[in-house]
Amino acid sequence: MKTETTIQGLSASLNPARSARKIIGFVPTMGNLHEGHLNLVREARKLCDVVVVSIFVNPIQFGPNEDFDNYPRTLEHDSHLLAEVGCDIVFAPSVEQMYGKYPRLTNISVGEITEDLCGLQRPGHFDGVAVVVTKLFNIVQPNFAFFGQKDYQQLAVIKQLVRDLNMPIEVIGVPIARAEDGLALSSRNGYLSEQERQTAPVIFNSLTTAADDLHAGKTLLNVLQQIRKSLTDAGLVVDYVEARSPTLQKVEQFDQDVVLFVAAKLGKTRLIDNLQVKYSA
Amino acid sequence: MKTETTIQGLSASLNPARSARKIIGFVPTMGNLHEGHLNLVREARKLCDVVVVSIFVNPIQFGPNEDFDNYPRTLEHDSHLLAEVGCDIVFAPSVEQMYGKYPRLTNISVGEITEDLCGLQRPGHFDGVAVVVTKLFNIVQPNFAFFGQKDYQQLAVIKQLVRDLNMPIEVIGVPIARAEDGLALSSRNGYLSEQERQTAPVIFNSLTTAADDLHAGKTLLNVLQQIRKSLTDAGLVVDYVEARSPTLQKVEQFDQDVVLFVAAKLGKTRLIDNLQVKYSA
Repeated sequence: MKTETTIQGLSASLNPARSARKIIGFVPTMGNLHEGHLNLVREARKLCDVVVVSIFVNPIQFGPNEDFDNYPRTLEHDSHLLAEVGCDIVFAPSVEQMYGKYPRLTNISVGEITEDLCGLQRPGHFDGVAVVVTKLFNIVQPNFAFFGQKDYQQLAVIKQLVRDLNMPIEVIGVPIARAEDGLALSSRNGYLSEQERQTAPVIFNSLTTAADDLHAGKTLLNVLQQIRKSLTDAGLVVDYVEARSPTLQKVEQFDQDVVLFVAAKLGKTRLIDNLQVKYSA
Repeated sequence: MKTETTIQGLSASLNPARSARKIIGFVPTMGNLHEGHLNLVREARKLCDVVVVSIFVNPIQFGPNEDFDNYPRTLEHDSHLLAEVGCDIVFAPSVEQMYGKYPRLTNISVGEITEDLCGLQRPGHFDGVAVVVTKLFNIVQPNFAFFGQKDYQQLAVIKQLVRDLNMPIEVIGVPIARAEDGLALSSRNGYLSEQERQTAPVIFNSLTTAADDLHAGKTLLNVLQQIRKSLTDAGLVVDYVEARSPTLQKVEQFDQDVVLFVAAKLGKTRLIDNLQVKYSA
């Protein structure tokens, strides 16, 4: 496995693969990798000849009061994990390598679906994601790109971006990896105290209960209220509990497939999760 | 020369060239071609193995009161001209082919340099240009792209866009093609009456006079006022007369290379022109 820290170095490393028209798979990450990320790499390994993983904590997707400075940077450990699951090239550029010395003027906005859910509390977040992903796509030029369904809204935003701009890339969403007790794996889980970690599975439990209740005939409004109550009772501060269509359109009733979304603070840690609920008439 | 009207057809046509790693040159146009466009194609022909010219009147770069509906569409004539100068593939998609049936949510803005000069009178114009050029770049995936210096601000915007988003494309600016009397060639010149056409060279004449005057020691402010007066005296309605640095930064004095910009209406036709003036201490 090679590690490249410059755009030029990465291009040189990828050039033989490009010349041979090999299938390039790309997994963009911010590092501090867990099984969720490794699943993305395993999926890429299955479909592609060459697997590139980027590790870049992207400053422009963090708000001024968010955890950019403290976001865990664990490149050495990440590299060991990536080598084990068959990554070919790690791309770990500096901020200067990605954003250069001159001011960036270009912004990309993916419109209304970025203003909802996490976009409400994190203005500009998805613009920052869209810009860095577009940059990374142009640098790596992959055939396939892999994103986790845990950041469901991010995945929807990237799919929309790729479609709207005719990027020659297929975006693949990979199911959420969970701990045995159901907690969705996240780099931010490392911020939780032992006690908070024991409380956190209430998020997934409330989502699965909601799915069962929907199938048993309860209303969408009712189950959303029930999720909110379960989280609040467990001591979480709810940011949102919402239902959307798979393409993030608002839904009033459970008369189609829906995705249930939760964002909540547990202590100082903001956690998100989601669950797709299939409709059958 | 092939003509393709679908993205899929174009991809199929380009696939052999891509597999053989040939150099692809791309000239995006809105058709109604003149010598200025043909110069871009000739330049592409010199540098590239395969030359693709797109002809697409892009609705999203026209304002609600602009000439989208009436913009001249002359595909057959354009095709004859392109065949003569060695174009390999004409890409002439429909609006539906480019923008599809579903709503586009993604917008691209190139910031402050799009809000100046033509951007002031044409809000959203350069966003529309940035979006369509990004789409076309992703569809054609050229190594080189050619733009005329007549639309100097557009060229600067595209260069900024490509740099900011790490697009793997080299953008080449080609000097303005002019009629014998100096009028910059433009598809919109066809809107001019015979009398207006005789008046129009005042734009270029006032620019060259200004360049001479700058070299003779007149101030920037003075020559800008003089251009404005010449145009007004000739019956044009000035939109702007401005000086900028080559990267479109504001300049106060002629103590560096400058570009002089004019936009003015002659009857109902809006004409633009510019002239680069070299500084030597």
